[in-house]
Amino acid sequence: MKIEGIELRRIEMPLVAPFRTSFGTETVKKILLVRVVTAHSQGWGECVADAIPSYSSEYVDGATNVIRDYFIPALAQSRDIDMWDVAPRLRTYKGHPMAKAALEMAIMDAQLRSRGVSFRQFLGGTVDRVPAGVSVGIMDSIGQLLDAVDGYLSQGYVRIKLKIEPGWDVAAVAAVRERFGDDVALQVDANTAYRLHDLRTLAKLDAFDLLLIEQPLPEDDLRGHATLATELKTPICLDESIVSAKSAADAIVMGATSVVNIKPGRVGGFLEARRIHDVCAAHDVPVWCGGMLESGIGRAGNIALASLPNFTLPGDTSASDRYYTTDITPPFVLHEGHVTVPGGDGIGVEPDPAILDKNTVSTEWISFT
Amino acid sequence: MKIEGIELRRIEMPLVAPFRTSFGTETVKKILLVRVVTAHSQGWGECVADAIPSYSSEYVDGATNVIRDYFIPALAQSRDIDMWDVAPRLRTYKGHPMAKAALEMAIMDAQLRSRGVSFRQFLGGTVDRVPAGVSVGIMDSIGQLLDAVDGYLSQGYVRIKLKIEPGWDVAAVAAVRERFGDDVALQVDANTAYRLHDLRTLAKLDAFDLLLIEQPLPEDDLRGHATLATELKTPICLDESIVSAKSAADAIVMGATSVVNIKPGRVGGFLEARRIHDVCAAHDVPVWCGGMLESGIGRAGNIALASLPNFTLPGDTSASDRYYTTDITPPFVLHEGHVTVPGGDGIGVEPDPAILDKNTVSTEWISFT
Amino acid sequence: MKIEGIELRRIEMPLVAPFRTSFGTETVKKILLVRVVTAHSQGWGECVADAIPSYSSEYVDGATNVIRDYFIPALAQSRDIDMWDVAPRLRTYKGHPMAKAALEMAIMDAQLRSRGVSFRQFLGGTVDRVPAGVSVGIMDSIGQLLDAVDGYLSQGYVRIKLKIEPGWDVAAVAAVRERFGDDVALQVDANTAYRLHDLRTLAKLDAFDLLLIEQPLPEDDLRGHATLATELKTPICLDESIVSAKSAADAIVMGATSVVNIKPGRVGGFLEARRIHDVCAAHDVPVWCGGMLESGIGRAGNIALASLPNFTLPGDTSASDRYYTTDITPPFVLHEGHVTVPGGDGIGVEPDPAILDKNTVSTEWISFT
Amino acid sequence: MKIEGIELRRIEMPLVAPFRTSFGTETVKKILLVRVVTAHSQGWGECVADAIPSYSSEYVDGATNVIRDYFIPALAQSRDIDMWDVAPRLRTYKGHPMAKAALEMAIMDAQLRSRGVSFRQFLGGTVDRVPAGVSVGIMDSIGQLLDAVDGYLSQGYVRIKLKIEPGWDVAAVAAVRERFGDDVALQVDANTAYRLHDLRTLAKLDAFDLLLIEQPLPEDDLRGHATLATELKTPICLDESIVSAKSAADAIVMGATSVVNIKPGRVGGFLEARRIHDVCAAHDVPVWCGGMLESGIGRAGNIALASLPNFTLPGDTSASDRYYTTDITPPFVLHEGHVTVPGGDGIGVEPDPAILDKNTVSTEWISFT
Repeated sequence: MKIEGIELRRIEMPLVAPFRTSFGTETVKKILLVRVVTAHSQGWGECVADAIPSYSSEYVDGATNVIRDYFIPALAQSRDIDMWDVAPRLRTYKGHPMAKAALEMAIMDAQLRSRGVSFRQFLGGTVDRVPAGVSVGIMDSIGQLLDAVDGYLSQGYVRIKLKIEPGWDVAAVAAVRERFGDDVALQVDANTAYRLHDLRTLAKLDAFDLLLIEQPLPEDDLRGHATLATELKTPICLDESIVSAKSAADAIVMGATSVVNIKPGRVGGFLEARRIHDVCAAHDVPVWCGGMLESGIGRAGNIALASLPNFTLPGDTSASDRYYTTDITPPFVLHEGHVTVPGGDGIGVEPDPAILDKNTVSTEWISFT
Repeated sequence: MKIEGIELRRIEMPLVAPFRTSFGTETVKKILLVRVVTAHSQGWGECVADAIPSYSSEYVDGATNVIRDYFIPALAQSRDIDMWDVAPRLRTYKGHPMAKAALEMAIMDAQLRSRGVSFRQFLGGTVDRVPAGVSVGIMDSIGQLLDAVDGYLSQGYVRIKLKIEPGWDVAAVAAVRERFGDDVALQVDANTAYRLHDLRTLAKLDAFDLLLIEQPLPEDDLRGHATLATELKTPICLDESIVSAKSAADAIVMGATSVVNIKPGRVGGFLEARRIHDVCAAHDVPVWCGGMLESGIGRAGNIALASLPNFTLPGDTSASDRYYTTDITPPFVLHEGHVTVPGGDGIGVEPDPAILDKNTVSTEWISFT
Repeated sequence: MKIEGIELRRIEMPLVAPFRTSFGTETVKKILLVRVVTAHSQGWGECVADAIPSYSSEYVDGATNVIRDYFIPALAQSRDIDMWDVAPRLRTYKGHPMAKAALEMAIMDAQLRSRGVSFRQFLGGTVDRVPAGVSVGIMDSIGQLLDAVDGYLSQGYVRIKLKIEPGWDVAAVAAVRERFGDDVALQVDANTAYRLHDLRTLAKLDAFDLLLIEQPLPEDDLRGHATLATELKTPICLDESIVSAKSAADAIVMGATSVVNIKPGRVGGFLEARRIHDVCAAHDVPVWCGGMLESGIGRAGNIALASLPNFTLPGDTSASDRYYTTDITPPFVLHEGHVTVPGGDGIGVEPDPAILDKNTVSTEWISFT
Repeated sequence: MKIEGIELRRIEMPLVAPFRTSFGTETVKKILLVRVVTAHSQGWGECVADAIPSYSSEYVDGATNVIRDYFIPALAQSRDIDMWDVAPRLRTYKGHPMAKAALEMAIMDAQLRSRGVSFRQFLGGTVDRVPAGVSVGIMDSIGQLLDAVDGYLSQGYVRIKLKIEPGWDVAAVAAVRERFGDDVALQVDANTAYRLHDLRTLAKLDAFDLLLIEQPLPEDDLRGHATLATELKTPICLDESIVSAKSAADAIVMGATSVVNIKPGRVGGFLEARRIHDVCAAHDVPVWCGGMLESGIGRAGNIALASLPNFTLPGDTSASDRYYTTDITPPFVLHEGHVTVPGGDGIGVEPDPAILDKNTVSTEWISFT
């Protein structure tokens, strides 16, 4: 496949409501989109880096720079490129998985569109729709939290995930259980906010029959998670710690995780994401698809990925209106607690040019010719 | 993809020389070919079952029967089928991986041909040619063995594998090392012929700097292999024991293997073969591609698989003339110790109708309409 | 003992009621019988393979073929044969334990009859009658299930086993416990229908004081069963996974099982079945005798086996009328919850020629002379 | 301590000779210097990020941006700052240890100067001079390598470290040992260039009595290093993998390392570097001080750190002329194989304004007032 050029487009999309995690609060989502143009097709990628380096060391400006200054020149050394070449050609550069993933996704999308194959078909998805969970941020009060959860349950979400941090954990979970009962599929996400010495607090969550506790300790603390796993009844699920199929294998062997949250951006792209899915399946470790407040472009890819068979837990693959009043693509909608896996070529969706332009902050075109 | 029908074709091809392993001796290779016909393309699959159930419980007649009587009817319940559907639809039937793999391969070939994509591109191969090793059967005398090895080295094979069994092991290896030196890449294959109490014999092989010893103990003896691995310096490589990505993960975690021989037929097909590749890569366990005396059809698929990046050891991906004077496809030839990965659509090769017919024993057409 | 010939006879017997497991539903049982004729006696064996390869890779047609095409010719190389020779002479052929077991059983029966020794005497049984459990298939409704269990308890069965699958598990068990109380000896059988990620569901069974949960995970998943064993209070019992005395020892050492279901067909015959009994006894692991809907011939052998001292749990050694209105042998009847161990020579029963003929679909005679 | 402002200064210094590692070749060193100005003193820090993100994900441009856009604003929220506050205040931002370390170093230097205390005194150094090793890059030929080593030995360096990569390893080491004998203190550094399957190659290094092999496998492969450690006689030393005192403890407990290379920049600063020193000492794991081609500013800090008592192996604390003809500070010179630990306040050296200006590419002043 011969690339004619790559466009880097920065957009900003207002969130329907502020989203607060243990890292901080977002009200506008800054997104870098990557568009790859070939003679026969174009492909879209979305970089899931946040505006600030708090979830990981990557952030939108930094990702934009490293893509422009290092990754695109490395790829442009040969115009003829296949999606499988992206990771090997960029391997000489350490880190920056979200930046790499955005490029790979756009190239994969262009290539699959030119072949007439969807992400789901290529990756090996086996279902037409996937169950949708929702991630509920930290609130100012328990009352506010219960209202939010009530709203999401009314909309039909089949699994609730509560963001937690020290001071907003046991009481929040207890309140949700008390109000909505034991049948709600419930899990929590700590985004590395605890330390092993918080064990006593975390152990109190065992009383609430949670599906899992996500990433309680810092990402490099596999040993700590392994210790925690022996002390808690609630299954440990790793997110930030899993950056590759290899790290997934290591974490599993160490007993540091019994569920894995897969995010294509965090692990360098969809090809590595599928490898993690396969490694986890081989170890009987269920996976689910996390979210990074993606626009419809990234969301389409995530939903295709979530159609693979070892995604046995509902993901953060919410409907578009969970985050955005007006998405840049036709919105993903909730129907009976599920969202539909796109069937079209590539990611199966296209941004609306007018909406896209309205949200665009800047564009940059890098020609390969 | 809509299937119009499937042809089961039995062929017999004379071997250039009798091939003797610890199971017995073959002079003619009986092969079942599967041809899938759709409106737009056709695809070929090869069943690697031997004539008798000695390598595994499968054999050509049995595979033909189970495909005709159970697997094709199960697939025919819906004419519209994708390659990813094959394994799930046949999951209700236990065992028979070689039969399942032949069907999946033919469907995959038809589908990739209709998309204009090669096996290598689809699977994610990263090289244009792969190094070729050769498997040397058990001989009547050491002299005969040395002549055979000499011939293969002259042809340029980059790795020699000696079949061994009790009574034909240490002396054979010692003779090859003495005659051809320490620089020859050398490994041995026992095809389950030993028991753990043969440890003292196997330990004598440690003196010869072998790349690996393949499947010394019975296929269900993971515990025995784990024990052996702690006693031998020579790395253990499993073949028959590895039937799925899950079994690969288990064997690795148990310390029963540090190298894996991947054969698509043994594991139910190319999709599972790639999963095993990925699981092994995640555990830093190198793999190589075994052989089952395939015709050019099966060989083409194997060579495409062997172009994936964790195939860091030369495989039994020999040139066609290692086994057959006249192959049913254009032959794979040895060039500087390598064979070329097919670049055409699907498996990239087609059987010659005249040669195919000449070797055909029977054909059977099962219509889906 | 000199064999004059072997008859392969295919029969079909209507079941008293459809029998549904996680594999599917049977209404007629297809059975392959093996009759060995010598100058002085004849012996009967029953192959327990199902009609389709769903319980394992074996099925009636396939077993018939492999016996006729490979196993009988291998045995016929010498007319003079002893029951202890059968397994060693067939070892060169991998797999097919049910086919091998049927041959060994018939030869053993002929040989023991000629010696005037019963199966029980030869195997070392220590009791005259064995307690009888019953296996209850999956039903269309809980009401139907309760009726069925009620009927079996009324008949005097001392232990109830419920077949389970996802969707038919906790509620079914709960209903039986609620209706019939905590004193009923109750266990469940999943026939590999679950995966490790179903742990939460399986853990709910802990509340019902079950004797055991049988084969929850796939047969090759010893590691998964070992993990499950550490998480569940209910003892794990393996069925499909145990194919030899060696595999029993491995499973026990790995912590994958604390009870074993022994089926002579699954493990290649009565001689290996006794070895498994002995290995389990040596590890203090209790065993019980499973069933494969046998006719009176297979049932007679099973009941003799179940008279050995480490069979400390009631087996699926039901009375004949649990499955068949008219059996081909005089029926085994339930008396005070027990069935009587046959005392006659060999298996101690003979088929009624008229009933046998009425159920016969085909016969084939292979002469050794 | 009240900060008035911070200057970010980009300089470029020509290397005396190209420096080639497994990552690539450098001829000019691009450096970011950080100067912190208070009412009473100023302090210097050096960011050790390379020009491209190959050693780690950090690179000069990226580090400059993240310092300017996130870290300095975070620190500027309160003008009053102590060196111990830097890491905690920046903790909300993940990664970027070299950027953080440069800031902390400058603040620490300013603060110690204002107190009249040297780095050595503050950190707890116990010697006046430290032994100097030298790192020798990959060369075009063995002859060139031997000439280079000969030169360094003549200058008095007490330890030689050879950079290696696949294809430049065993032969290079063998040649150095053969030419200069077994008494030369010799070690190798792979900078993550190998994989576990290269074990056979790495094991050949065992013959040469090396002090250690540094970072053979990727930085996130602690499990692989632990496996390697059990197979090699040569001690494993980790560099890139050790990013904190916690990761050092983890690696030691896992058996993944028996020596540690400490680089203040890699671990987020001198305070964390000392903690790693202390943790390693507590585990009886010797440490040594690595180098990143620092100018005299960074070099001064490294040499002070290397005066602590658990630095029992010579470091890459070479004389300035190993890399630069004219350094921006008075040069560190080699005397009897040692360099002198600076005794002055703070890092004990000051850049020469004229030389500094000559090498300056850009400066940027960020006022805190």
